[in-house]
Amino acid sequence: MADPLTRLVQQLCKLPGVGERTAFRLAFHILRAPESYATQLADAITQVKQRLRNCGVCGMLTEDEPCSICRDQRRDGTIVMVVAAPQDVLAFERGGAYRGRYHVLHGLLSPLDGVGPDDLKIGALITRCEAQSGIKEVILATSPSVEGDATALYLAQLLKPLAVTVSRIATGVPIGGELEYADGVTLHRAIEERRNV
Amino acid sequence: MADPLTRLVQQLCKLPGVGERTAFRLAFHILRAPESYATQLADAITQVKQRLRNCGVCGMLTEDEPCSICRDQRRDGTIVMVVAAPQDVLAFERGGAYRGRYHVLHGLLSPLDGVGPDDLKIGALITRCEAQSGIKEVILATSPSVEGDATALYLAQLLKPLAVTVSRIATGVPIGGELEYADGVTLHRAIEERRNV
Repeated sequence: MADPLTRLVQQLCKLPGVGERTAFRLAFHILRAPESYATQLADAITQVKQRLRNCGVCGMLTEDEPCSICRDQRRDGTIVMVVAAPQDVLAFERGGAYRGRYHVLHGLLSPLDGVGPDDLKIGALITRCEAQSGIKEVILATSPSVEGDATALYLAQLLKPLAVTVSRIATGVPIGGELEYADGVTLHRAIEERRNV
Repeated sequence: MADPLTRLVQQLCKLPGVGERTAFRLAFHILRAPESYATQLADAITQVKQRLRNCGVCGMLTEDEPCSICRDQRRDGTIVMVVAAPQDVLAFERGGAYRGRYHVLHGLLSPLDGVGPDDLKIGALITRCEAQSGIKEVILATSPSVEGDATALYLAQLLKPLAVTVSRIATGVPIGGELEYADGVTLHRAIEERRNV
């Protein structure tokens, strides 16, 4: 039966982490909620696709061109932090620890998945650093995974000939983390990258 | 910031079991998915509210009046199964073990939450059984919880004066369930309602 309920469940099932049971629970919630909620939710879904685009400078999601971070004159334009995805920008912004600019690669190098340098916004990063933009440092803030490390290494080699300092975010035991529950690789890196105090 | 992404995350957060992290994951999935998916999902949400109503006979969700189960002449019109919610009808239909008709109460008696008999579709059930409808048996299939049992007891007393057999679904250890993991109350009921073999 392709009634409205089944159609909604089918569409909800395509969301990550949503199986048929969860989809039914969500669908019944929408059914019981006031009509205004369904309208607002449907509208928010449509709007997010129609109004958001990637910033032409840094690649972050934005309604305006360039994005609010690139426009903000109070931010330090001499530092650019390279991240894999818009989510990472949000994570750093939530922390509030960083006041420079960003560059979103929209992915990580992953030969096994067929993702090569041309599939990422790497050319735009090089152009940005080459131009008389005043960029002095590039922080490679890809995740400390196989793909993240490989991407950082690749970018470091590309950026070396340019007149910029290239750095990599620190890896180690997370603050507030229990050593007991830290995995072996993290502990290994924490020892390897130990600092004199 | 009330940008499209934040608005979508806010709306998604209102769904049951969806926190901010999950909402962000869902929102980014929608952002990355093809535009057609966002359109179909938004449309399915709108349609489910606009096109589904409660069947005037049994109270099940339907596009047409009466619903397909009430219209189906191959089903046994002499038996009516009373359930709390449309989800329960779907659960019984999935099993395929039942070929009679349904009556959806749209809730269970719950004095603490202020839900009394007038808030449920009880009057319609009585009218349905009183009329020359040919109903011979009413199966009370509310859940074996405090509210479900109380509702069943209340309905049994109301239905007793009418010329219908009133029954209650069996409770006990679920098929395929491990006795080891069954809770004490279930085991207690399984012993209490033991049958001679």
